Amino acid sequence: MKPNNTLLCDFYELTMANGYYTLGKSDEIAYFDMFFRNVPDGGGFAIAAGLEQVIDYIKTLKFTDEDIEYLRGKGIFSEDFLKYLKNFKFTGDIYAVPEGTPIFPNEPILTVRAPAVEAQFVETFILLSINHQSLIATKANRVVRAAQGRPVAEFGSRRAQGADGAILGARASYIGGCSATACTISDRDYAIPATGTMAHSWVQMFDNEYEAFRAYCRCYPNASTLLVDTYDVLRSGVPNAIRVFKEELVPKGIDNFGIRIDSGDITYLTVKARKMLDDAGLKNCKIVVSNSLDENIIRDIIAQGAKIDSFGVGERLITAKSNPVFGGVYKLVAKEENGVIIPKIKISENPEKITNPHFKKLYRLYDKESGKAEADLMCVYDEKLDTSKPLEIFDPVQTWKRKTFVNYTARELLVPIFLNGECVYKSPAISDIRDYCAKQIDTLWDEVKRFENPHGYYVDLSQKLWDTKHKLLSESVKSKS
Amino acid sequence: MKPNNTLLCDFYELTMANGYYTLGKSDEIAYFDMFFRNVPDGGGFAIAAGLEQVIDYIKTLKFTDEDIEYLRGKGIFSEDFLKYLKNFKFTGDIYAVPEGTPIFPNEPILTVRAPAVEAQFVETFILLSINHQSLIATKANRVVRAAQGRPVAEFGSRRAQGADGAILGARASYIGGCSATACTISDRDYAIPATGTMAHSWVQMFDNEYEAFRAYCRCYPNASTLLVDTYDVLRSGVPNAIRVFKEELVPKGIDNFGIRIDSGDITYLTVKARKMLDDAGLKNCKIVVSNSLDENIIRDIIAQGAKIDSFGVGERLITAKSNPVFGGVYKLVAKEENGVIIPKIKISENPEKITNPHFKKLYRLYDKESGKAEADLMCVYDEKLDTSKPLEIFDPVQTWKRKTFVNYTARELLVPIFLNGECVYKSPAISDIRDYCAKQIDTLWDEVKRFENPHGYYVDLSQKLWDTKHKLLSESVKSKS
Repeated sequence: MKPNNTLLCDFYELTMANGYYTLGKSDEIAYFDMFFRNVPDGGGFAIAAGLEQVIDYIKTLKFTDEDIEYLRGKGIFSEDFLKYLKNFKFTGDIYAVPEGTPIFPNEPILTVRAPAVEAQFVETFILLSINHQSLIATKANRVVRAAQGRPVAEFGSRRAQGADGAILGARASYIGGCSATACTISDRDYAIPATGTMAHSWVQMFDNEYEAFRAYCRCYPNASTLLVDTYDVLRSGVPNAIRVFKEELVPKGIDNFGIRIDSGDITYLTVKARKMLDDAGLKNCKIVVSNSLDENIIRDIIAQGAKIDSFGVGERLITAKSNPVFGGVYKLVAKEENGVIIPKIKISENPEKITNPHFKKLYRLYDKESGKAEADLMCVYDEKLDTSKPLEIFDPVQTWKRKTFVNYTARELLVPIFLNGECVYKSPAISDIRDYCAKQIDTLWDEVKRFENPHGYYVDLSQKLWDTKHKLLSESVKSKS
Repeated sequence: MKPNNTLLCDFYELTMANGYYTLGKSDEIAYFDMFFRNVPDGGGFAIAAGLEQVIDYIKTLKFTDEDIEYLRGKGIFSEDFLKYLKNFKFTGDIYAVPEGTPIFPNEPILTVRAPAVEAQFVETFILLSINHQSLIATKANRVVRAAQGRPVAEFGSRRAQGADGAILGARASYIGGCSATACTISDRDYAIPATGTMAHSWVQMFDNEYEAFRAYCRCYPNASTLLVDTYDVLRSGVPNAIRVFKEELVPKGIDNFGIRIDSGDITYLTVKARKMLDDAGLKNCKIVVSNSLDENIIRDIIAQGAKIDSFGVGERLITAKSNPVFGGVYKLVAKEENGVIIPKIKISENPEKITNPHFKKLYRLYDKESGKAEADLMCVYDEKLDTSKPLEIFDPVQTWKRKTFVNYTARELLVPIFLNGECVYKSPAISDIRDYCAKQIDTLWDEVKRFENPHGYYVDLSQKLWDTKHKLLSESVKSKS
């Protein structure tokens, strides 16, 4: 059963909704964009995730009698409004970038067109879901790229920020490229493969480490990964593991086993352990490592020659520890008056907080020859790119910086999710989202994928959109002087 | 309805459980401690939170037929074990520190005594819940202390790491001292007062800012906080707010209104805005600020003379951005053999990862004269402090550092939560937890409460416990040589 998260909203969504309703403005059509301003960790791109849960949320929106009774108790909502909430549902349109798509700052990744009350009300959950999962998918992808093809399992449930942080964090990690999770319920509910070995407590429950290892290999002869750092990795753990593998598994022709190291200097220990295993004739034995890893440590220990077959990454992935906030925002960009779309802008004391107005389309431009993504272009909703003609784009701030595309294709990134309140989109299987994500990242230049100081990908405005924005800006300045 | 989070467990809890069951070890009694190693943000103490959700989890533990079918599909669990899971429940004991208690590194904040399968199985959720909420309660308390008596509202739902991150993060923030939350569902379900004002979109939905403000004050004459930074705080927002307050509210004798500033230089803008409001005769008008605040920014802007009546704190609180992981662990500390409690230790390559063995009691020692907490003392479960006699405590590493208490009281911190599977504890009302927390923090010396480089609070071992630990350590070294 899906939880009813209707009241998982900022309280001001309700006070504003009551206000619009009372003022007769609730049916005015409003357009909101979700976008973000900075890529976490100073990276070159983020990965969109969390849309499927937004769809579930919109579909299950319902104020129960208990909710309405609770709101009545606040003493500030009109009875007419409370009655209206009884049959409240989303009747508008939502467009969004599919999950797994690389996304860039300041471009719309989701657009809502709906009666003002509805469009406003869904703000909190849309931001919550997409901010959270995009954050974790983006972080997971950094970790996975650092691992250079070695599988990365998500191990962080115990340090996640709440149950959904664990469950959906595992989902987002998988979209970003992880191969598995430790979180069992994410496997049952979201088909993320669950995996796991043993805890130190298993070893401690037996009279000695050898007996603990032997018992485990007898229980799970075909899936034995032994945790070798309960007492002493090189003097106790690895020798006991070698002895047990040779006694219990090798004679049966089993060669699918491994050890896990969860503390100490990973480079030193894995090099030594690898040599001990190889010398014992166990070249097939895999080495799994964990212990507060992230993309930087993984990159460093691989560069130092650590002998690692796969990684378990916990707290620094499931919380995106180095940068645990994905700052997506949800801003009014237009409203309809008598059927005409009127673009709206939000000025700010902070120039980077000025919004891109209007109901928009978003194109990704690919070079036909290389297949690489070269730029994203925001246009007004009624513009249409003619890719048979050269296209000049320009930097929206340093407008003298211009570039012309000739041999290119264009893909519209925002696809319809809801139209007139009906869901018109079917979320792909999670493994297809993961594959799509990997393929899309292949279309980015390596320069954009650098962990630090990446090349800035172009996100430009069409001439028509740029003109609209600057007209609104000068009108706003004029109105104040 | 509480969600069934039984499968919100690391997969290895299940493989180990199946192992214990198969080996006939499932009824051996095991003792596990939860403890943490470092206070987030380099602070002097943390605040325990998340116990109520652990209680709910233990009470609702149940493998549904669907869960068992899912596990059967994995092909590694014995049919006997799967049958056993059908009636699985927790039959053991849990002791824990009450929510809102200041806690310190390396002391047990929760102890489980139960048959091995059960004690092991509950690990993931216990860690997840207490790690998450203790993290946020600890952060919230730093922010609240920085605000020096000004109310702090939690505004972070949209940037939380998942739904529970928002909902229970609001709960934990309240325990730590916040006065309210923006998260409506946390009010409905956990009695955390919900609050809110308006978004920039409200202002944009009207033809101009003045009309937007006037409409809001007419809707909510007794709760008007106007967001003044949609266009220009000092040239547009504040003048329009003053005009509307004077036209709409002052004539009615209403003086309970305010403005909110969400961007720009908060010190500069609040000083200027305060003067404009005062000059207009609106000395009662409150100034609320928000925009990526945390305890450091709040401390700085107050020191600079910013004129602020209350704070809204979002992403940096709800994710504990500066240090988003509470590293609580769950370690086997003893097991019973023929009714005798055998202490267990985990050695490690990292010395700070060596555990404190045995089934323990935890005392907090207070100086009778000052009422201040002076030290925590871990004892073996069967020790009893006689507070009528002097007590010498000593540093567990630098054992020559000693201190004798004479005029002191001792309080046992671990209280029974479950006994023989029955819950024997009733969680206090959330407001009582919040009050208790504030009172307990008053018992700490200011030196312990410093944000940076605080005085290290003593957490010591009784002589008997220290002897036990060192005996296990030397036996372990001997067994390897």
